[in-house]
This record gives sequence, C-alpha cells and structure tokens, in this order.
Amino acid sequence: MSRKGILMVLSGFSGAGKGTLVKGLLERYDNYALSVSATTRKPRAGEEDGKAYFFKTVEEFENMIEEDSFIEYAKYVDNYYGTPKEYVQKKLDEGKDVILEIEIQGALKVKKAYPDTLLLFVMPPSAALLRERLTGRGTESEDVIASRLARAVQEAEGIEEYDYLVINDDLDTCIRELHGIIQSEHCSVERNQEIIGQMRRELKAFE
Amino acid sequence: MSRKGILMVLSGFSGAGKGTLVKGLLERYDNYALSVSATTRKPRAGEEDGKAYFFKTVEEFENMIEEDSFIEYAKYVDNYYGTPKEYVQKKLDEGKDVILEIEIQGALKVKKAYPDTLLLFVMPPSAALLRERLTGRGTESEDVIASRLARAVQEAEGIEEYDYLVINDDLDTCIRELHGIIQSEHCSVERNQEIIGQMRRELKAFE
Repeated sequence: MSRKGILMVLSGFSGAGKGTLVKGLLERYDNYALSVSATTRKPRAGEEDGKAYFFKTVEEFENMIEEDSFIEYAKYVDNYYGTPKEYVQKKLDEGKDVILEIEIQGALKVKKAYPDTLLLFVMPPSAALLRERLTGRGTESEDVIASRLARAVQEAEGIEEYDYLVINDDLDTCIRELHGIIQSEHCSVERNQEIIGQMRRELKAFE
Repeated sequence: MSRKGILMVLSGFSGAGKGTLVKGLLERYDNYALSVSATTRKPRAGEEDGKAYFFKTVEEFENMIEEDSFIEYAKYVDNYYGTPKEYVQKKLDEGKDVILEIEIQGALKVKKAYPDTLLLFVMPPSAALLRERLTGRGTESEDVIASRLARAVQEAEGIEEYDYLVINDDLDTCIRELHGIIQSEHCSVERNQEIIGQMRRELKAFE
C-alpha cells in the first residue's frame, strides 16, 4: 500500500504521556521520524542544538518566517516556536511517517497547510487520573495545577478537530494502537489514488 | 476505546478473495459476525438455510420489504437478495463488528441508511493477476471471462466511494491489515463522542 510518508500531529493533555509514546514509536518501528522544532528560547543546561530544538536567534527565526520556511510557527510569552518545512519534507519524501508533537492551534495550522495530515489526540483514561498525574509530581503549586486543568478543559474543546483518539492507559497497548492507526491510514483510498489509477488502466487494457 | 460494533462492507473484484478473507477474520478473531443475506433463489444442493443464505419465498421476501426489514435489497435476474436488519442490529448491539459481503450498489445503499458504515475494498495486486485468477479456474469460456473483466472495470469506477483499500497479495498479511483497519476505526474521534463528553464533564467538575 501507499508508502509515501504520512504527516501526523500528536497532541494531548499535559500529563497524557505524549513524549513517552513518541519515544516508544521511534524505538520500536523504523518508519517514523520526529520533527524537531525551532525556537528562540535559550537552551537549558544540557540541551543540544538539533535534539529537542534547533536554537535560533530572533533574527534567524524572523528570516525563516520571511522565507516561508515554517509549516507553522507561534510566539509564546517572548519566544518563537516553529516547525521547519525542510526536514519534514525530506523525511516524507524518504517515505517516513513524520511525527509533530504540537498543541491544537499548531495542529490546525498544519492541517490547513497540509490537508492530509493525520491528527491524533492522546488522553489519560480519566480526568481523575490526569489530575493525579499533574499533581503527582509533587512539585507544583495549587495555582499551577489549576491552570493546567483549565488548559486541559480548553484543549478538550478541540478534540473533534482530530481524527483519532487514543487512551494512554497501558503504554505498550497505546503504542501498538497508535502504530496500527498509522499503518491503516496507509490503506486509505485517498492515499492510494495512484494504485487505483494504475489498476483501472491495466483493466481497461484487457478489454 | 469504542466497543460498540462497527458495520462494515467488504467489496472487491470477483477473484479478489473476499470469501477467504472473511473466513479468516471470523476464524482468527472473536469480534466479528457475518451478516447472512436473504434470497428468493432456490437453494443449491447442500446449501443449508441460514448458512450462506436465508431462503425465502417471493411472498415472504416482499412482506419483509413492506415491513422495512432490509438494510438494502436488490433484484438480480429474477431473484431478490437482501440484508435483513434484525440480525445486523442484534450483533452490533452485542458489540460485534458486522461484515456484509456485498457489491458497490448495495454498499452505497447501506452507507446511506447507516452513514457510519465502514467501506472496504479488496483488490488483487495487479490486473494481470486478477485475469489469471479469473481464467485460472479453466472452466470458463472467453465470453464469461470478458464479461467478468468488464464488470471489474465498472466496479473499479466506484472505489473512491470506499474508505480503505486492501491488496490481497499475501492472505495472512491481508487479514491482519483488515483487522488493523477495523481496530483503528474503533479509535476514531467520531466513534468516541461519549468518552470525549465524559472527559469534558469530569474536567469541568475539577475546576
């Protein structure tokens, strides 16, 4: 079936385990590539350029905006964050399924620019467990926890924009489910127009 | 994820191996039920009522039409064929994924009556192989083969109406692919509105 790479966005509540899921997909299967975002925020201790982020100056980032080098970008507080086109396109051309781990506003921008983007949303099995995970770290104030929950409420409003919902109850099951969804997506009629066209031409040649 | 049953139609060219695929799904997994069609054609030697078909008189069949007991029905040559609603609904309510093995006209009627029906199309890996399979039986005249190929050309026109395309190259792979598609479909956002609604209510209660 279609082995052109699929562009996908993985979103979900803070505390839903997105990072661990992405790591699992990359470790277990060889068809994935993770898009690395660019940012103007300063690297933290131990952060290497090109690993979690490509670190850019404001001038560099704004030049990239000018040159239309981002699939999507946004400014949070005083820092820019964006998804560079070049790496994503290169990996898709190689047939890799490219994962973007971004939130809903970014996801919708990506979907607008690339309508065949697959949007995946990860949820914990219950709100109670989400709250537990957010508070369980034990390091956050009540205010921070409340604001995270408020954000989750807001994010939950957008789930209908997504294609699939996965519940991160058991990590292993969830990774297999995500992989299954992406494998199935390669069989969608929309993504196999070329094969269908070829079959039609061949059948007609027999008539 | 959603364990309400999914109604699905499996269509595909004659010779694509639909029957074997359905048999494989039913044997390997316990989440499937096969819908048995009703017909007014006479049973052939060895055909039991309720296995391949429910055998009905014309009067019985027409009464069932009157009573709106079919999801879809059609008349071919002089015989009626139809999909009785009752069995399908019962199995869906039990949480089974119900397979209908019907052709495109029927598939589209089912989709119209039940918009969340999943439409699956099976193809052999190439038109040459399809021709080989159709002629390989060695029992058919050139005319019959030509008319089957003509029918395949016609059926191929409708593939865009389907959701997924599976290539029946290796039987085992194809069965696993079909199963994966249906499993993934249970994770679609559309089929999980209840879980999403519940998460929203729970989150709001924390605020």
